[in-house]
Amino acid sequence: MKKNASPWIRTVSLNPPTLQDNTADADRLISALKANLKTAAIDIDLDLLKKLPDLLRQWKYQVRCMVFKDRQRWLLTGVTDAANAGPIAGLAVDLGTTRVVLRLVDLITGRTLAESAFDNPQDAVGPDILARIHYAEQDGGLEKLNDLIVSGLNRAISRLCQSNKINPASIYALTVAGNTTMTHLFMGLNPRWIIREPYIPVVNKPPVVKAATLGIRVNPLARTLIFPNIGSYFGGDLIAGILYSEIYKREETAILVDVGTNAEVVLGNKNWLIACAGAAGPALEGGVTRMGMTAGPGVIDKIAIDPNTREFNIHTIEEKPPRGICGSGVIDLAAQLFLSGMMDIRGKLVPDAGGSRLKEIDGLLHLVVVPADQSDTGTDLTISQADLDSLIRSKAAMYTILETITASVGMTPAELKRFYVAGTFGSFIDPRSAISIGMLPDLPLESYQPLGNSSLEGAALALTSAACLEEIDRLRDRITYLELNVNQEFMNRFSAAKFLPNTDPSLFPSVRVQTSSFNLKK
Amino acid sequence: MKKNASPWIRTVSLNPPTLQDNTADADRLISALKANLKTAAIDIDLDLLKKLPDLLRQWKYQVRCMVFKDRQRWLLTGVTDAANAGPIAGLAVDLGTTRVVLRLVDLITGRTLAESAFDNPQDAVGPDILARIHYAEQDGGLEKLNDLIVSGLNRAISRLCQSNKINPASIYALTVAGNTTMTHLFMGLNPRWIIREPYIPVVNKPPVVKAATLGIRVNPLARTLIFPNIGSYFGGDLIAGILYSEIYKREETAILVDVGTNAEVVLGNKNWLIACAGAAGPALEGGVTRMGMTAGPGVIDKIAIDPNTREFNIHTIEEKPPRGICGSGVIDLAAQLFLSGMMDIRGKLVPDAGGSRLKEIDGLLHLVVVPADQSDTGTDLTISQADLDSLIRSKAAMYTILETITASVGMTPAELKRFYVAGTFGSFIDPRSAISIGMLPDLPLESYQPLGNSSLEGAALALTSAACLEEIDRLRDRITYLELNVNQEFMNRFSAAKFLPNTDPSLFPSVRVQTSSFNLKK
Repeated sequence: MKKNASPWIRTVSLNPPTLQDNTADADRLISALKANLKTAAIDIDLDLLKKLPDLLRQWKYQVRCMVFKDRQRWLLTGVTDAANAGPIAGLAVDLGTTRVVLRLVDLITGRTLAESAFDNPQDAVGPDILARIHYAEQDGGLEKLNDLIVSGLNRAISRLCQSNKINPASIYALTVAGNTTMTHLFMGLNPRWIIREPYIPVVNKPPVVKAATLGIRVNPLARTLIFPNIGSYFGGDLIAGILYSEIYKREETAILVDVGTNAEVVLGNKNWLIACAGAAGPALEGGVTRMGMTAGPGVIDKIAIDPNTREFNIHTIEEKPPRGICGSGVIDLAAQLFLSGMMDIRGKLVPDAGGSRLKEIDGLLHLVVVPADQSDTGTDLTISQADLDSLIRSKAAMYTILETITASVGMTPAELKRFYVAGTFGSFIDPRSAISIGMLPDLPLESYQPLGNSSLEGAALALTSAACLEEIDRLRDRITYLELNVNQEFMNRFSAAKFLPNTDPSLFPSVRVQTSSFNLKK
Repeated sequence: MKKNASPWIRTVSLNPPTLQDNTADADRLISALKANLKTAAIDIDLDLLKKLPDLLRQWKYQVRCMVFKDRQRWLLTGVTDAANAGPIAGLAVDLGTTRVVLRLVDLITGRTLAESAFDNPQDAVGPDILARIHYAEQDGGLEKLNDLIVSGLNRAISRLCQSNKINPASIYALTVAGNTTMTHLFMGLNPRWIIREPYIPVVNKPPVVKAATLGIRVNPLARTLIFPNIGSYFGGDLIAGILYSEIYKREETAILVDVGTNAEVVLGNKNWLIACAGAAGPALEGGVTRMGMTAGPGVIDKIAIDPNTREFNIHTIEEKPPRGICGSGVIDLAAQLFLSGMMDIRGKLVPDAGGSRLKEIDGLLHLVVVPADQSDTGTDLTISQADLDSLIRSKAAMYTILETITASVGMTPAELKRFYVAGTFGSFIDPRSAISIGMLPDLPLESYQPLGNSSLEGAALALTSAACLEEIDRLRDRITYLELNVNQEFMNRFSAAKFLPNTDPSLFPSVRVQTSSFNLKK
């Protein structure tokens, strides 16, 4: 991605005033900045006006200006001596429901200075969006939730600045991408109507506001861009992701999938963009990764099962003794169980093939992934038939959504040339396994590209490129939101997708070959 | 002046959201307002966003919106139920150095609801601009001056609202016109450089700010337009005056003169505007009206002297016993003294003609205007030769400025068709007397038009007409400011103007006739 260095930093050299040239200090500065930025108007704040005359004289009218853009309007957010080469920073924030990630960016060079992350302290009130919205409706609830996230951010900013020897007052711009509810809670806006039909946010395109207005302790005149949302279930984090993926710029049609609690999907190219969110598909409730734990040392992230011996080859993060399994590990496990014949096409564990690894616990069939004597916890690490059933429903919903959104433009999932997978899910998942269980379409593996934290990356892009910042609203307005009606056609697709890899194996030619070869060997 | 009713109040009827039409509350409202105002963008404040969802539902999406304009940008400053017919008010303020005048305007009808005035409480710190600027440089001085005017305004607003049964929160817009120093002190801007060469204000075009930011207790989201200035000595009060006079609109060339501590003059028509201020002419220092007192009961405002008997016919305000003389009275007195032969063409009292009315006090010749036994104070009301000398210098400076500004465009004062005189000076002065002493040019009397408090009227215009509000910056930018260089030509004109009515009596044909006739009679 091309970046213009310092779109927000402009050094201007003013002629000091004379009797013949007696324009006021502020108007003199603004006039030079207008020429520099080729714009008709730049807003200046009263607080800045108060300090300006002494500073300009002290600096002999040589000024480094910090600017930012609020839609069509340029804003002057700060000034330093032109000779001052001190850092000017920006902060990009991925405002996640469970985890918040911050990136400190050098606005002069556009380079990343540091990153940090913290668990969203609103978790203490409620682990998910729904619980928090209900809490926000209680007396003082909204204020409490707002305070939790704002103070959490302030603590993180303070630590991040301290360890990078940067004064928080040197942060002049913030960009924040999050889902619709999180951005509402961050702004102190009542999220009540987000979860009630017809699901209306307070605002789609939040105004650019001063950090101080939001209670964020950086430079008080720093402006905060909060990414716009398309609706209650398609948030600014996705807009940031689209910005980062650049699918909106290219000729070829690509798809972007973000799998968290919901599956959010965008399909498009430079001419059109269509989006949908899995929250409308009830089968995805609870999420693909519900049974998985957060990635961390000792968590199983890869599994291979020898199709002949059915021996498990387990990989854990940092190769520590196993203590659990994460989302990508579960998908690997399901794929390997299926390919090794230990799970049938309905997703049911096959008692004959499971052997001693199968146990009945509380009347429910479990598979022992790691026996107690090899695990870090000293107990069996197991996965139940119910967990696997849930995974099958989720993968079926995922594939159904992909079929539905592609069908809406007369395509099939198999025709996709480029498939972006966002988030930690995208970074850890093995596309081979996801294809094997029929969760993702059977595309050449090189079509799959993990995007990483595309919400954070998109937020950071808006900090380092004026063109990207200006693209955000346009992008948001270009997206057609597809309401996922759970109609008969959707349910037919969903039923078909509940088989491994699918009722129609011709959709997954690469998987069929492997399965057959295994069956032959058996 | 044509006024569009309610440029700032727009009632919009929104379709309540549905599953098919799920635009957010704020965006739904803004979208309807954009169509209503035919504009591309309207800003909304975070504080308003917080309240919006509940209000919209309570009002069934039928909303009365208060808007205002900040240069190219529309702002939403408040909302009420569309069914609410309660008052929406604006406040126009003439921020004078000695006196502050407020006008409460009904923004729905454009009508004046009430007016009030109070003495500028900054007088306690210093009676004039210079003293206040020096005070502002002391530690805490600026804050004190700012607090004095802001609390003074708040008290006046509170009283004005109370007696008109209006909640201050119903005031949604303010317009403030004042001289450059007063507007700086009102905004809390350091006026230090205004009085130091090269005389640079902090700002020429102040930003539109929230009333709350300025500490003004009306609706906290009410916006405040502070009239722009041309420089340290040509303030927003004059721009307001030009707006009110409409000279900027007309084909014919007219002149606008505002005489206070300085004489400020604007000459022009719809094609060009040129301005100058008497502060650049040192002879006007101290001002025309220095020796005069503020108009009030018992103050002499008109004097006639019988040319034959030299009897004084004195008129006082409210016909109370005389206790002093105001500016217009002093000019009447000088004219009558001159016409009755009691003062010569150099402005010196004529001992032979003055008789018993002349007294020497502390070695200086005085004229008794009212003897002790007829005055309210029980002492002689007198005017000294020094006072008259000062008046002669002032009238000479006034005429010299008029000659200089008209000469700059190849005209003479006698060619002026319309002559606006602003302020209390303009309301009370008898043009006949001012012509007799050669202070104002010898135009037909009907050319002279008092403008009243044109600063307040201009401020009120901006509250009631969007076109006028939009005109302000354009008007300001169109004005060419003429620096009054005190060069040889200026000094020649000044010397000539120090005679009564002038060294060149052909400039004052009407005065010459009177003088001759009197001389004949004598």
